Amino acid sequence: MKILKVVETPVKLEGNISNALVNFSSHTVSALAIITDQVRHGKPVIGLAFNSIGRFDQSGIIRSRMIPRLMQATPDSLLDSTGQRFSPENVLSCILKNEKPGGHGDRAQAASAIELAIWEINARLDDEPVSQTIAKYFDRGAREESVAVYAAGGYYYDGENDSALRNEIARYQDAGFTKFKMKIGGADLKRDMQRIEAAIEVAGSGQNLAVDANGRFSLNDALAYASAMQKYKLWWFEEAGDPLDFELNAALSKGYSGALATGENLFSHQDVKNLVLFGGARPDRDIFQMDPGLSYGVSEYVKMIDELETRGFDRRFAYPHGGQLMGLHVVSGLGLGGCETYPNIFQPMGGFGDDMEINEGRVSMPSNPGFGFESKSNLIHEFVKLLS
Amino acid sequence: MKILKVVETPVKLEGNISNALVNFSSHTVSALAIITDQVRHGKPVIGLAFNSIGRFDQSGIIRSRMIPRLMQATPDSLLDSTGQRFSPENVLSCILKNEKPGGHGDRAQAASAIELAIWEINARLDDEPVSQTIAKYFDRGAREESVAVYAAGGYYYDGENDSALRNEIARYQDAGFTKFKMKIGGADLKRDMQRIEAAIEVAGSGQNLAVDANGRFSLNDALAYASAMQKYKLWWFEEAGDPLDFELNAALSKGYSGALATGENLFSHQDVKNLVLFGGARPDRDIFQMDPGLSYGVSEYVKMIDELETRGFDRRFAYPHGGQLMGLHVVSGLGLGGCETYPNIFQPMGGFGDDMEINEGRVSMPSNPGFGFESKSNLIHEFVKLLS
Repeated sequence: MKILKVVETPVKLEGNISNALVNFSSHTVSALAIITDQVRHGKPVIGLAFNSIGRFDQSGIIRSRMIPRLMQATPDSLLDSTGQRFSPENVLSCILKNEKPGGHGDRAQAASAIELAIWEINARLDDEPVSQTIAKYFDRGAREESVAVYAAGGYYYDGENDSALRNEIARYQDAGFTKFKMKIGGADLKRDMQRIEAAIEVAGSGQNLAVDANGRFSLNDALAYASAMQKYKLWWFEEAGDPLDFELNAALSKGYSGALATGENLFSHQDVKNLVLFGGARPDRDIFQMDPGLSYGVSEYVKMIDELETRGFDRRFAYPHGGQLMGLHVVSGLGLGGCETYPNIFQPMGGFGDDMEINEGRVSMPSNPGFGFESKSNLIHEFVKLLS
Repeated sequence: MKILKVVETPVKLEGNISNALVNFSSHTVSALAIITDQVRHGKPVIGLAFNSIGRFDQSGIIRSRMIPRLMQATPDSLLDSTGQRFSPENVLSCILKNEKPGGHGDRAQAASAIELAIWEINARLDDEPVSQTIAKYFDRGAREESVAVYAAGGYYYDGENDSALRNEIARYQDAGFTKFKMKIGGADLKRDMQRIEAAIEVAGSGQNLAVDANGRFSLNDALAYASAMQKYKLWWFEEAGDPLDFELNAALSKGYSGALATGENLFSHQDVKNLVLFGGARPDRDIFQMDPGLSYGVSEYVKMIDELETRGFDRRFAYPHGGQLMGLHVVSGLGLGGCETYPNIFQPMGGFGDDMEINEGRVSMPSNPGFGFESKSNLIHEFVKLLS
């Protein structure tokens, strides 16, 4: 069994969306396909994946560093001990060959796309969804057949006013969501509190609403927001300060009794270990949002979960960032707390299959093999173009 | 004043050198030139730079993300308040536009090449060495006219034996060096102690010898090496464990009274802050090796030094990794402790000008404008190719 070819292309995200720090209108992500020499049901077995949303394309790293290493490897060195399936760990080790430790940035996203495509190959060889492959691989027996999801949005659209925000959340409710997340930090505190109160009126309770500052705040600003938001008993307060400012996070956790969430910008188990040891994380409430699509794939993500669990944290507090089919399968396969999603935005990568409905804040896992990209028409279209 | 064009090419490093973790035979770095509309002495003013050694080429990030942002910027937005020179901070902010916080990996190296080339433009506009430009910019008055340097080497060459190691250090002594660094962790502890003892015999004293494990060790291995090496009173023990394992570093600093060195794989001031707060760093002995050529350039490097100095550390304990002309100018301009160099290896990027001699462990700063790459024949050759 061997890899015949790997192809990659950057795909531009649709829309003109901003959070407190970043405008996504020029963002691209890398869509990737690994073509094997295996044939199943008369078709070549191909693994499809992309790097998750939020970081720019890694075409250069994938093409000039990682694909050559993969193609130069002895085919058997990429397989597991049975010789019948690819080893995600061996593949990851191969594509990082001769790279130094530390500096977990763009290459973590580049590696994710390849590692995740390997999981899709293994799943397709077994005619099963990736979630099931992951559950088996990590000895969890079976995947979870439905996953809690929440609707992230509430960006600072041009011309937004509170009725637009209320309508947005009402639309998510109509679509079956029960929990929501909105951006803060792009206006002043007083204005943001008005927005939060408007959102809570529709959401029904602060416990149905999380807020996300995207790493914008100084400690003083974070504490001021924490103090003003305390009474709302929000679901969580996300990325108050710089994602690597563990001192800030620890100080904030002392000044805010609600849940804090962070982790989407930590790309290695070592960074997660530091968050847990030095960032003041509390096992009974805080939320961890590392994204396997940004951080070297599932094998590194599982090491992150190990860092949490060996220190008394529960994987049910893990809600991966990203909001796409790959993350959903990881949540189901590993039995995590739930999955973010951005309804209708970050297309064509964001969201789930065309016919996957949200009911009371949960989504039923699809049964098609692999990640099921063929059930998402605008996304499979990109992969078809890549392979043609 | 504006940028007309930016060109970049990956350059392959010569040699077949390994440290404990990495073989450098396929490494490339990005050589880059920024061509301005300015003319001086009848020639266009061009800034040359490259990203420092140890990380792979960032051609993709530079070309697809950073150069387009630079070329789309309003030219005046890249200038300082006088309008006569480029602002390195504004340029850095421009090339990182719409990128999220955290994840300081490959893009930090990509950005370094551009930010450093901007310093060279400013220096050439003033007909002065970059070291002098840096000293003025950061209100240090004048650069330091000579810089302490040490010879890094002692790799695990194929077929190495202790006489080769002794000869290597003797060659460095003949070349004017008084302090040396060798790799450890590529053999077992007993064998490495034999190598260290052989090296000390030539170096004259443990205080003239540093050892570098390149992040290889677990805490137990690091403590075992620390215990075995304690009696040698080495200059320093470098990168014992994973560069982000601050818990390991803190535990090791309690179990080893000698100096510990780390930082070459930390690429942001936030990571350096975490090292100082959580890594057990001791202001009276430990060494900091952050490399401006790997970490967004001089403007971010100065923030790293600020993180140290606001917590009672002294910049004389900073010895940037890298061993090339750009780092040398930063050390001279900012008044740091000294500079690494790898005599004769990592060519054509490594080392200083062809006629720059080492005397009693110090090198006199060159007086030619910019970084003085034209005094390094094999390196300027690469830039001439790039510009032709």
